[in-house]
Amino acid sequence: MRVGIVGYGNLGRGVELALRDCPDAQAVAVFTRRDPAVLQALTDTRVYAAEDILSLKGKMDILILCGGSSDDLPLMTPALARDFNVVDSFDRHADIPRHRARVEAAARDGGRLALIAAGWDPGLFSVFRTFAAAFFPGGQTCTLWGRGVSQGHSEAIRRIPGVLDAREYTLPTEAAEAAARAGEVPTLPPQELHRRECYVVAAPGADRARIERTIRTMPGYFAGYDTTVTFVEMQELMRDHAALPHGGEVLACGHSGQGGEHTRRMSCRLRLDSNPEFTGSVLVAYARAVCRMREAGRVGCVTVQDVPPGWLLPDGTEEGSLL
Amino acid sequence: MRVGIVGYGNLGRGVELALRDCPDAQAVAVFTRRDPAVLQALTDTRVYAAEDILSLKGKMDILILCGGSSDDLPLMTPALARDFNVVDSFDRHADIPRHRARVEAAARDGGRLALIAAGWDPGLFSVFRTFAAAFFPGGQTCTLWGRGVSQGHSEAIRRIPGVLDAREYTLPTEAAEAAARAGEVPTLPPQELHRRECYVVAAPGADRARIERTIRTMPGYFAGYDTTVTFVEMQELMRDHAALPHGGEVLACGHSGQGGEHTRRMSCRLRLDSNPEFTGSVLVAYARAVCRMREAGRVGCVTVQDVPPGWLLPDGTEEGSLL
Repeated sequence: MRVGIVGYGNLGRGVELALRDCPDAQAVAVFTRRDPAVLQALTDTRVYAAEDILSLKGKMDILILCGGSSDDLPLMTPALARDFNVVDSFDRHADIPRHRARVEAAARDGGRLALIAAGWDPGLFSVFRTFAAAFFPGGQTCTLWGRGVSQGHSEAIRRIPGVLDAREYTLPTEAAEAAARAGEVPTLPPQELHRRECYVVAAPGADRARIERTIRTMPGYFAGYDTTVTFVEMQELMRDHAALPHGGEVLACGHSGQGGEHTRRMSCRLRLDSNPEFTGSVLVAYARAVCRMREAGRVGCVTVQDVPPGWLLPDGTEEGSLL
Repeated sequence: MRVGIVGYGNLGRGVELALRDCPDAQAVAVFTRRDPAVLQALTDTRVYAAEDILSLKGKMDILILCGGSSDDLPLMTPALARDFNVVDSFDRHADIPRHRARVEAAARDGGRLALIAAGWDPGLFSVFRTFAAAFFPGGQTCTLWGRGVSQGHSEAIRRIPGVLDAREYTLPTEAAEAAARAGEVPTLPPQELHRRECYVVAAPGADRARIERTIRTMPGYFAGYDTTVTFVEMQELMRDHAALPHGGEVLACGHSGQGGEHTRRMSCRLRLDSNPEFTGSVLVAYARAVCRMREAGRVGCVTVQDVPPGWLLPDGTEEGSLL
């Protein structure tokens, strides 16, 4: 499988490292909007300017799109799905149906196959929620995220005037964690499931009280959540908050028996030192499946819900050994 | 979906209860080798003699086969896959390839689709091991079972002369549990991952020392394992060991980063008050997928590795809401 990596931030580098660890796949090109002459890939993958992508059309079996979900992917994925098989990690849950419709139209137009919203959530956790819905009819499911760095929330803080840099950690509240430890599915409202820790570097002379108030009251991000804001120096942020860990847990509970007297619990847990490196591995595995599904004649836009698990495995893996 | 249940032991009843909880499925018949006149189903499902099954051929979309993996399914699944779409829970891991080949031939012959080895292990845990293999190349995986009743081990004890009844619990050793609690993947040899607790009702006058020795040294079942044997009265066995709980955990660990400096951990955990009722729910969900795959033209024999997760959901479930 010859793969092109589109976008070379944290996720693009994660994909590159994931490809290095797969004997059946190869990174043939990195595409960047920056000057390719000044960009050095982690491995010896060649770096191209984003606008040259069509000139490599016959040389790549699939593109893994490593742009952001807010500004890049809504345009990038439909645009490239006409000419290439593509995989993206679009993660704005509520906007997935609209994104899917646009990608579907473009991919069908070009006779390509696209898979959107791969990663761990949406992605692995979505599949697990599907298992819970299928195996526990009438049951309850809850997803806890963290402790981990939320890129979207960090970015939202960085946009506040007077903020030089910031890192936001999302983590379950103590009440949610206690329920999970006890094997329960917490039934708290969203704002009581998670809390938010923010580390902020303010510009010299910036009004810290205003910055803190702006964060705490930001609708859709922090308003209603237990939010702590800690101002730190740039040096401290670089030293203590450079890593991008994340993780989480899907908890499900149901009942069975003649009178519902039997309880059944299921959970899926993830702990990652590097969120983008794990997401990179997931994207590479789904890219493998997409190439096979395209070879089998499939076109259009699919998600993780459409992929048989066995298709994720590298060539030569004995599926039977996993049964 | 109109379902026939073949075999009416614990698993058959579990399937019947699972169907009761699915708005899109219906148990239309139970087939038994016992006298159908003396068998009363839990719901109002009609009970037929096993030999009458072909007379209901057009009235069922799929059969869920609830026989044992040692004596029933190796013959039953290929025999019925000629005339019906079928799902079974064949669980002798090492024999799956041979079982699959025989079922595949029969199902192709009859233009039917069969799915074998569904349940939680093999089944849900197999899918999770596949995710681990796909997302953690070069990583480690370990499966812990228990604490729960192993039907195969209980049956092996019951076959010893002088034993009236028995219940075997499989459970992780303390060393394995400690590793799992610490987030590690235990790397112990199989016999140090699990231990076995046996509760045995001996016939009056039976040689208990011989029975205990026969259990402890039984190859493939108990030899090499930390095994405790407790003799109890029949009344105590009925009172304290009537339930069929089970559960387990798949643990996976891998590394990423330029020099493998980042750790990633993934786990899937199951706790069931009733093993056959959960297995019943899983079989019903896969039966739904098999009917859809057959409608889409697929014939032959498949496993959980071949089924897109979204196909497990009841009609009308918004897949997107799980993404």
